[in-house]
Amino acid sequence: MTRISDLPTPTLIVDRQKFDGNVAKMAAVRPGRTLRPHIKAHKSTALAAQLAAVGHTAFTCATPREVIGMAHAGLGTDLLLANETVDPTRLRAMAQLLDTSSSNTTRITVAIDSETTATLAAECGIKDVLIDVNVGMPRCGVSPERASELAAFAVSLGVNVRGVMGYEGHLMAVANRDEQRTKVRSAMELLVKCFDEVRAQSGDDCTIISAGGTGTFDLYDPSDPVLARVNEVQAGSYALMDSHYGALELPFVQALYVVGIVISVSDSWAVIDVGLKSLGMDHGNPTIAGASVWFCSDEHITFSMKDGQPLPYVGDRVLVQPAHVDPTIALHETMHIVDQIETGEKGISGTVIDAWPVNLRHW
Amino acid sequence: MTRISDLPTPTLIVDRQKFDGNVAKMAAVRPGRTLRPHIKAHKSTALAAQLAAVGHTAFTCATPREVIGMAHAGLGTDLLLANETVDPTRLRAMAQLLDTSSSNTTRITVAIDSETTATLAAECGIKDVLIDVNVGMPRCGVSPERASELAAFAVSLGVNVRGVMGYEGHLMAVANRDEQRTKVRSAMELLVKCFDEVRAQSGDDCTIISAGGTGTFDLYDPSDPVLARVNEVQAGSYALMDSHYGALELPFVQALYVVGIVISVSDSWAVIDVGLKSLGMDHGNPTIAGASVWFCSDEHITFSMKDGQPLPYVGDRVLVQPAHVDPTIALHETMHIVDQIETGEKGISGTVIDAWPVNLRHW
Repeated sequence: MTRISDLPTPTLIVDRQKFDGNVAKMAAVRPGRTLRPHIKAHKSTALAAQLAAVGHTAFTCATPREVIGMAHAGLGTDLLLANETVDPTRLRAMAQLLDTSSSNTTRITVAIDSETTATLAAECGIKDVLIDVNVGMPRCGVSPERASELAAFAVSLGVNVRGVMGYEGHLMAVANRDEQRTKVRSAMELLVKCFDEVRAQSGDDCTIISAGGTGTFDLYDPSDPVLARVNEVQAGSYALMDSHYGALELPFVQALYVVGIVISVSDSWAVIDVGLKSLGMDHGNPTIAGASVWFCSDEHITFSMKDGQPLPYVGDRVLVQPAHVDPTIALHETMHIVDQIETGEKGISGTVIDAWPVNLRHW
Repeated sequence: MTRISDLPTPTLIVDRQKFDGNVAKMAAVRPGRTLRPHIKAHKSTALAAQLAAVGHTAFTCATPREVIGMAHAGLGTDLLLANETVDPTRLRAMAQLLDTSSSNTTRITVAIDSETTATLAAECGIKDVLIDVNVGMPRCGVSPERASELAAFAVSLGVNVRGVMGYEGHLMAVANRDEQRTKVRSAMELLVKCFDEVRAQSGDDCTIISAGGTGTFDLYDPSDPVLARVNEVQAGSYALMDSHYGALELPFVQALYVVGIVISVSDSWAVIDVGLKSLGMDHGNPTIAGASVWFCSDEHITFSMKDGQPLPYVGDRVLVQPAHVDPTIALHETMHIVDQIETGEKGISGTVIDAWPVNLRHW
């Protein structure tokens, strides 16, 4: 039996009970295909298989490597590359997964937002596309007034337009939920209008209105004539969470930690072997329960204890909660799944029951 | 012949001429063994071999994996793990490289800063240690007044004390060089005093006073009775540089870029496929020449052009300079070495002449 104390550090662990709780809470609000879980948060087919097991069998990906890896893992029934790609080699590699044998159930849909991305997709053998619409965040997405024109262009190239997506990423972290609800509704009004225009250019298979993320997962009110039409949400972070999303009023709890070990203790601070190469830092410093994080170096966190609590000893293990899950996981090879994590006077306990390789890293 | 435009994006490239220039400038000031290049910056034995070829044959490492990988690559003549490790498995794995056959030239020295780290090193078969002294930065290192006591303890355990190290990391980025010089001298005064006390407890093989980094590489004035005694500098970032160090008055230039490709262009911004999973972000946003970086997402940078310059086109390649090299490289599998990089009206040109695997990642 492997315990947390047997794992070499730094390493990622997932709290099995918290993970299961997060997955159940999401599935209750967005069951089955109404959620299209985003793979980019964890880049792990093993984790994705857990979500498929509770009914979420359509997935969102950010990179061709994620798409191809998911298909190879038998999770490719309905994969959306929710990102523009202009690399013909990778587009062809995805298209090659779409052979015509009747036993092949792989379906890959690629986001397009320009004539260039549409043309490349068509030339490389991609059969299904989604019109990526800019609903307010300055990133990818065609402007709403050009969406139907792009759909018509894609149809003229012989590709199947399955619908629209519009990621309101600029609204994910609006702290006031009423304000967030109002803004999300405005963004979705745009997207739904685009969908109707796009569908007029496309066939009966044009049915998808895809949007949202962890921060907005429950705002697509089924009693609202606009919001009810958003038929899939692209949330990914909810399963593991991070301290950035954790600061919002969401029902999900942090289930991912980096385990470090104390390597040095001075009079007023301690140092663990977790640092910039094991933590995504774009959302700021990580959190250690009961401690003040002073700063992070390449391989270290220097911290002190709050409320007069004593410093740990050299060799003690410490749980670190990253501020942003996605780029943290991208630095690791494996997540260890732990049953019954407890932090007590004798340190951190818990049994390692599984390992999920982070097997879809890189591009 | 492979050109930059043939590389899938995002990917790391190294400007061969700039790299060579940086290496030559450093070797002129700190030749041969007076520099102990730090591997943590790039985690690549291929890059390390370039430094060995110009005479720097002793190396600094931050992790056991770096130490073991360097030894396996035939670069293990004198490896310093300049970091505390309390993992017996990894300490033993390093010790196993020190077999007694006459053909084995591997030497591994491990930093210690406590009785615990000293005891573990000795128990696991490590033969050589360095006393890591805290010279002012709140991180690892024994306090100066306890250094000789720790040395005596290590000697009592039968390990060989080769000297002291003291990383004045808090002084690396002091912008005013006169102020930096004064502060570095004070820190080194502490370290040199510790060395004399440590040497009194140790044998004739106690000769090393190791300190510094890229930001202080030329401050160990050979005419100064204290500074001249620092006989090795642990610089690593100088070879590739980053925009953080680039802001200081150092002679080294940025030689590492992340190459991205434009995937989306709107009326006032463009988006490339470089983001939080291909960039270390702890020192802030990366830099794109001639552009204003708006923000970075997991897989994207949104930017606009300065001075009324036109936005690029979808499919154009863009060079991104990371703010911090070390955690950026830790996200990539390979650095591509490029000859004669030029940015002109027809885009970025340059011939890919080599690939250096980032083969010492993780722990």
